[in-house]
Amino acid sequence: MTAQRADARRNYARILAVAEEEVAAHGADASLERIARVAGVGSATVRRHFPGRRALLEAVFSERIAALCARAGELAGAGDPRSALLDWLDALASYAVSARGMADALAPDGARDGTHESACSVRLAASADPLLHRAAHAGAVRPDVTVADLVTVVTGLVLATEHHPDQAAEVRRLLALAVRGISPA
Amino acid sequence: MTAQRADARRNYARILAVAEEEVAAHGADASLERIARVAGVGSATVRRHFPGRRALLEAVFSERIAALCARAGELAGAGDPRSALLDWLDALASYAVSARGMADALAPDGARDGTHESACSVRLAASADPLLHRAAHAGAVRPDVTVADLVTVVTGLVLATEHHPDQAAEVRRLLALAVRGISPA
Repeated sequence: MTAQRADARRNYARILAVAEEEVAAHGADASLERIARVAGVGSATVRRHFPGRRALLEAVFSERIAALCARAGELAGAGDPRSALLDWLDALASYAVSARGMADALAPDGARDGTHESACSVRLAASADPLLHRAAHAGAVRPDVTVADLVTVVTGLVLATEHHPDQAAEVRRLLALAVRGISPA
Repeated sequence: MTAQRADARRNYARILAVAEEEVAAHGADASLERIARVAGVGSATVRRHFPGRRALLEAVFSERIAALCARAGELAGAGDPRSALLDWLDALASYAVSARGMADALAPDGARDGTHESACSVRLAASADPLLHRAAHAGAVRPDVTVADLVTVVTGLVLATEHHPDQAAEVRRLLALAVRGISPA
């Protein structure tokens, strides 16, 4: 690899990492100028790697799903099974809040037809199954609960809180309610 | 009241009661012909009371909210506080599943702008508050849980299961999970 190509790859990774943080914090309206500035590159460099906002959002979308899958892998192997599952649920909720914004930003070019969402669900289920099985084995979750159930609950909370001024906090609060139980027997 | 007017009122009440059951079972696509047949009246009588499907759906919508409010009142005064709350949550979930279909059927004439939904939420909160307070007093639910929280959780489950072949059963199953807790401590 030439020094020039190595530089380009580092820039790409840095822009994507910064974009991920900015989108997590500000949603799909994250400023491209600010992303360039924080990443320490020029706007022209951002445009060379990502010809437009959509290309950048799509890369972030895919990157965040990959990170969520990787996080499930890490958590499945370490620490208390219940805490590990709850940590992952938190990460899933953060993703779902930002993904909703991204899905809207990417519509109507196919992001709203559910195809993307379904592919994501399959990847998430495959990655988080070991985490869930370990928690079930430890008695921290019933054995009939599936990753799809968790995704549906989190997705529902995101959809039902769309107009909340602090949606991320509201989703976390209601998810905590569903985790500890509205009325545990 | 003339015998004729008394007859008309009885027909109206009977059509509405049957329509409520049919919409609960089959959603907004419930057959008007079947409603007339089960109510034991002719199609012309249904049309005289409800000049179209929309008028009938709107009456059912309003009737079901009123029934849900009345149910909260009955349940607040009798039986075990936790069972009473869970019975009402079940009724809320059934309403939300059918209301979603009705809201879609009534769109775009204002049913989708959230105004109707908000007015319903206010009526529901006022009616179900005593039920929730009694359950909180008995330790069956945390005192910081609000009727709005319950409505948001149920609405979210309905929105996230829109394409499920047996949505009512799926919502009930996931609501039971949230009630007992995904992972109670």
